[in-house]
Amino acid sequence: MSGIVVRNIERSSLEHLAPLAERGVATVHEAIGRTGLMASYMRPIYPGASIAGNAVTVTVAPGDNMTLHVVVELCREGDVLVVSPTSPCEDGYFGDLFGGVLKARGVRGLIIEAGCRDIRTLQGMDFPVWSKAVFAQGTVKETLGDVNVPVVCARQRVEPGDAIVADDDGVLVVPRARIDEALSASLARVNKEEANRKRFAAGELGLDVYGMRDKLAAKGVRYYEDARALADGAAS
Amino acid sequence: MSGIVVRNIERSSLEHLAPLAERGVATVHEAIGRTGLMASYMRPIYPGASIAGNAVTVTVAPGDNMTLHVVVELCREGDVLVVSPTSPCEDGYFGDLFGGVLKARGVRGLIIEAGCRDIRTLQGMDFPVWSKAVFAQGTVKETLGDVNVPVVCARQRVEPGDAIVADDDGVLVVPRARIDEALSASLARVNKEEANRKRFAAGELGLDVYGMRDKLAAKGVRYYEDARALADGAAS
Amino acid sequence: MSGIVVRNIERSSLEHLAPLAERGVATVHEAIGRTGLMASYMRPIYPGASIAGNAVTVTVAPGDNMTLHVVVELCREGDVLVVSPTSPCEDGYFGDLFGGVLKARGVRGLIIEAGCRDIRTLQGMDFPVWSKAVFAQGTVKETLGDVNVPVVCARQRVEPGDAIVADDDGVLVVPRARIDEALSASLARVNKEEANRKRFAAGELGLDVYGMRDKLAAKGVRYYEDARALADGAAS
Amino acid sequence: MSGIVVRNIERSSLEHLAPLAERGVATVHEAIGRTGLMASYMRPIYPGASIAGNAVTVTVAPGDNMTLHVVVELCREGDVLVVSPTSPCEDGYFGDLFGGVLKARGVRGLIIEAGCRDIRTLQGMDFPVWSKAVFAQGTVKETLGDVNVPVVCARQRVEPGDAIVADDDGVLVVPRARIDEALSASLARVNKEEANRKRFAAGELGLDVYGMRDKLAAKGVRYYEDARALADGAAS
Amino acid sequence: MSGIVVRNIERSSLEHLAPLAERGVATVHEAIGRTGLMASYMRPIYPGASIAGNAVTVTVAPGDNMTLHVVVELCREGDVLVVSPTSPCEDGYFGDLFGGVLKARGVRGLIIEAGCRDIRTLQGMDFPVWSKAVFAQGTVKETLGDVNVPVVCARQRVEPGDAIVADDDGVLVVPRARIDEALSASLARVNKEEANRKRFAAGELGLDVYGMRDKLAAKGVRYYEDARALADGAAS
Amino acid sequence: MSGIVVRNIERSSLEHLAPLAERGVATVHEAIGRTGLMASYMRPIYPGASIAGNAVTVTVAPGDNMTLHVVVELCREGDVLVVSPTSPCEDGYFGDLFGGVLKARGVRGLIIEAGCRDIRTLQGMDFPVWSKAVFAQGTVKETLGDVNVPVVCARQRVEPGDAIVADDDGVLVVPRARIDEALSASLARVNKEEANRKRFAAGELGLDVYGMRDKLAAKGVRYYEDARALADGAAS
Repeated sequence: MSGIVVRNIERSSLEHLAPLAERGVATVHEAIGRTGLMASYMRPIYPGASIAGNAVTVTVAPGDNMTLHVVVELCREGDVLVVSPTSPCEDGYFGDLFGGVLKARGVRGLIIEAGCRDIRTLQGMDFPVWSKAVFAQGTVKETLGDVNVPVVCARQRVEPGDAIVADDDGVLVVPRARIDEALSASLARVNKEEANRKRFAAGELGLDVYGMRDKLAAKGVRYYEDARALADGAAS
Repeated sequence: MSGIVVRNIERSSLEHLAPLAERGVATVHEAIGRTGLMASYMRPIYPGASIAGNAVTVTVAPGDNMTLHVVVELCREGDVLVVSPTSPCEDGYFGDLFGGVLKARGVRGLIIEAGCRDIRTLQGMDFPVWSKAVFAQGTVKETLGDVNVPVVCARQRVEPGDAIVADDDGVLVVPRARIDEALSASLARVNKEEANRKRFAAGELGLDVYGMRDKLAAKGVRYYEDARALADGAAS
Repeated sequence: MSGIVVRNIERSSLEHLAPLAERGVATVHEAIGRTGLMASYMRPIYPGASIAGNAVTVTVAPGDNMTLHVVVELCREGDVLVVSPTSPCEDGYFGDLFGGVLKARGVRGLIIEAGCRDIRTLQGMDFPVWSKAVFAQGTVKETLGDVNVPVVCARQRVEPGDAIVADDDGVLVVPRARIDEALSASLARVNKEEANRKRFAAGELGLDVYGMRDKLAAKGVRYYEDARALADGAAS
Repeated sequence: MSGIVVRNIERSSLEHLAPLAERGVATVHEAIGRTGLMASYMRPIYPGASIAGNAVTVTVAPGDNMTLHVVVELCREGDVLVVSPTSPCEDGYFGDLFGGVLKARGVRGLIIEAGCRDIRTLQGMDFPVWSKAVFAQGTVKETLGDVNVPVVCARQRVEPGDAIVADDDGVLVVPRARIDEALSASLARVNKEEANRKRFAAGELGLDVYGMRDKLAAKGVRYYEDARALADGAAS
Repeated sequence: MSGIVVRNIERSSLEHLAPLAERGVATVHEAIGRTGLMASYMRPIYPGASIAGNAVTVTVAPGDNMTLHVVVELCREGDVLVVSPTSPCEDGYFGDLFGGVLKARGVRGLIIEAGCRDIRTLQGMDFPVWSKAVFAQGTVKETLGDVNVPVVCARQRVEPGDAIVADDDGVLVVPRARIDEALSASLARVNKEEANRKRFAAGELGLDVYGMRDKLAAKGVRYYEDARALADGAAS
Repeated sequence: MSGIVVRNIERSSLEHLAPLAERGVATVHEAIGRTGLMASYMRPIYPGASIAGNAVTVTVAPGDNMTLHVVVELCREGDVLVVSPTSPCEDGYFGDLFGGVLKARGVRGLIIEAGCRDIRTLQGMDFPVWSKAVFAQGTVKETLGDVNVPVVCARQRVEPGDAIVADDDGVLVVPRARIDEALSASLARVNKEEANRKRFAAGELGLDVYGMRDKLAAKGVRYYEDARALADGAAS
């Protein structure tokens, strides 16, 4: 089950994906029904980066980055590398040499459920990484994983060519078949949020904007003027 | 036990609380006998914020932010919202829409033993949050918690109207009845530390400033000139 | 086994150690055979610091910083304090008062497998700390540990006088007997990486730079043009 | 804030509490509105124990069991000792000597958000402990905590005299004022569950027993015969 | 994306699956190329259970077990229920009532990346559960998940009808399309291990049984008679 | 730094070590000044085992058990194998084949800061293991570690030939040079505990047995009859 390398995947155009980065992880995640979000321990190695791109997937053995060397020549402009170890590992598979090479190929960033190192240099070259750990621990080059097969990374299934959106809020996977939906639904959400934002700015409350007061009553909310009223059981 | 909403709480004046923010979590924590500090996993979503305010408390069901919508209209200038899930959860209950609304009401910040999202936007609007996680995972609006009842948040009991102090060192709860003590004791501590700082700056040692040399001797400290002396058992 | 204080240790000259800081944790770690790296949970309290110095070692009881007061007068220019609790603890043993005193003595920084506080002030005075936690929880002064005996800190053995290298990638221990080797091997590595960097910049691939293609073939790598070819079992 | 020892607390009669142990943590927890459950990391040191008793509360400094020695003479038949460290600690505060002494006084068991040791001997004498860790690490006797003041233990507030119920499912706190409610509501729940159990045994489904089918429809459940129907969008 | 319930899935015959339980997780995992193993935090609630069955999959919202009620009537003899929350949660979704009902339907056990309760009763009825936590925390019935769609559970993708093998070593997923391969390869492995076991029992070494001595030499192994020889650099 | 194999180590006689197992981890740990205890996450794979033996040490690369095959032929009656991965890993390096072979050679047990599998079979053959995880994840045989060099395992330094004591309370390292001290001091402690046990059994309190009442007074203990007295500030 290791040693499989698929050279070509179906990619989306970069213009198509760009609005996903702009709208951000939280918004797109809501737009596609709150699915696809990687675990919260996937954190950016520096703040402020925001990307969207086509997933190129890699599995690696624990402590072994041989397959990362394999995948480089298959990466293209707009790709996002997604790396999953076959068992939990936080070794530093990835550093500034890899970062420089991928940056030169137009890769947008790296998602790795393991460790990353050389983080200051990577920040200097503006090559963003979302990882489970920062760890300088070196790796060997002895065991083959797979390239461009479906993987599970940080609680989410990723297929080659899925869209990856990542920013300070985390990492989101949008299945390739749902990218159009994600674009239209996130646009609708942005517009709706903008409208809501204006109502909020005008002083309206979420209870009214979202029409929740009846629902609250049905759920049995009980208001008390203060702690004394609560002690007396005097709802108001 | 859910659905209780207490509208009004006893608050301290904001002028009264302001010095607590200035003196900071570490100092006030020492001043009140090393009590009230929330767990270390409560971290700010961006560095540099420093607040003090009156606690408004909320319990929420896991993955459900309905009660956050309820509490908004009860918040006032100088409040700090303290949110505790009824079982461990790291979902992103709170984002920029909530942040904007609370900011407009003068709320100083949010303390949530769960997740937060839209952290870049929240930083941009300078609405600080201390949370257990950054996580974009959305929540539903189906289950009622309580508002302004005593809660346990990140290992500490918080009652409505307690003072909350938070900065880069963490989050501290000062019981309402001890706020005056916290003010006077933290002032005394600042002054004492200032005096000590001068002695340290003049080259004095903590062993002398704190008069610890006799205590050390009583505890059986043994000095050796170097590793060889230690190997020889030749204390000096 | 507590109360031992060794006054003097063998130190390396600061000019000797300086290149280690410049080359950084990841490079030196590789240079000495991927040994000596502390656990990944040892993180800097602020980004950007980079140090190398002579280890002064301390053990402390949980929640008790008495021994930190003992060690101060033994510290010299270029030292790095390494603190290990005798059982896991994240209390805030160390704050700005200690930081100021050590800074004045020329200490380069603190490595503590526990908590640290006053982190904003420490950043302001540029006294870097690598710790397991940021936690304002205060400590007592009742129990003696040891000073300048071998300790285990964050998975690594540290002997007094070992070199400590720390930056945004983590904390590395270089045994005193291997410092010269670390210097020469890291220089060789820097030079080699520089050469490789040029080849990478010229478009060469790691597979070729590192001569891995034969090894891959021997390991049984199988290339497929695309997912369809994979499904058809048509390796290319 | 340390060194306070309250000698006497209000206790419930042991006959009164006995049914809570028999009905168990899960049932009583449901009966009192799903409140009061300690964190899931509180695990029994051996399986099969089941207790209910009056809480005697203790705070301890990290790595310091002095206050446990203080509390022993205040314990009585039917008590459950609840121990909370003032900051996170997993040291082995408690072993078989303490177990034997408390067992002789009729104490039902120990709840400690820290470590325990001598677990085989404790099992042999049938003195149950629920703890965060099994850890032989010894403690000192230098710092005073408090006895019989309100504490927070494993996410729950415990007041002296509250009822503690503990079994293989975990540890539950029932506030003293709610013990009668817990008794009657848990009895009602046991009876109701018994009735439901018979209906389930007769082949009825929860969907019908709990009348959930309309609610499901209102929530928009969509049934598909199989994966093909799902792919075709052919709900049935 | 929630509320989908697929009624029927493709199942393997129980006779077909039985040998997988007998051979066990570790052996079958090796046999299928070391893939499909769930994370190590999935532990049995009691020791000694060993099952194999057809996966019926469920997603649940955090703290909400509504969908578990939906799935019961779709379960059949030999099924294994696999439950994944949409965000991390350790609430006690499952207890003895569910256990009794599923046991009556012939369900082999439950795999849940969350909490379980009533564990003593479940052990008494011999209904095994592998879970992330034991936690009595109750759940609500307000939010719909999905039934019999592909899920990710504890780092592994599970499709309805995949084979689940679980015992004291953990939980393994065998994709439906690979069950035959798993059966034949695990049988081969059992036979080979049996042969090896005899050679080991006769005193042979793994180095010889697996023919590793040449490989070791090629890797540069250096033998030293003792620590003195090592210090002298006198390999033998 | 890898590939070093030291064939022979200095061992203690098994009769010499036997009393350490009998007295147990907690007692010996106290006897040698509360040092040498491995981290609490090192747990036995089944309850009830109790061993003492001579440490044979091994380092392994993450996910690679090649070095375990190397060490087998060097093991002798009464050894305890201590295995430390070079970076954190929980893979299942060790199973029943290894267990059978080592059992046949008289090895007392395994200490591994990683994973173990085949735990039911290992229990059946009574070969005890203390590990960080139970995990069936397989390993490769590609990378050499070292045998019988000093290692750090679960926070403790272990040198070849140190005594290892392990039971349900955890794992303890006794440096070879301190074994005699451990024997005499643990015997003294057993005798003293026995004497104390009798005094406790006769109803004496630890406060008196350990002479703590004066110390408590000096520390400022304040007794209150009950909560009312505490509220009134009426110490007694």
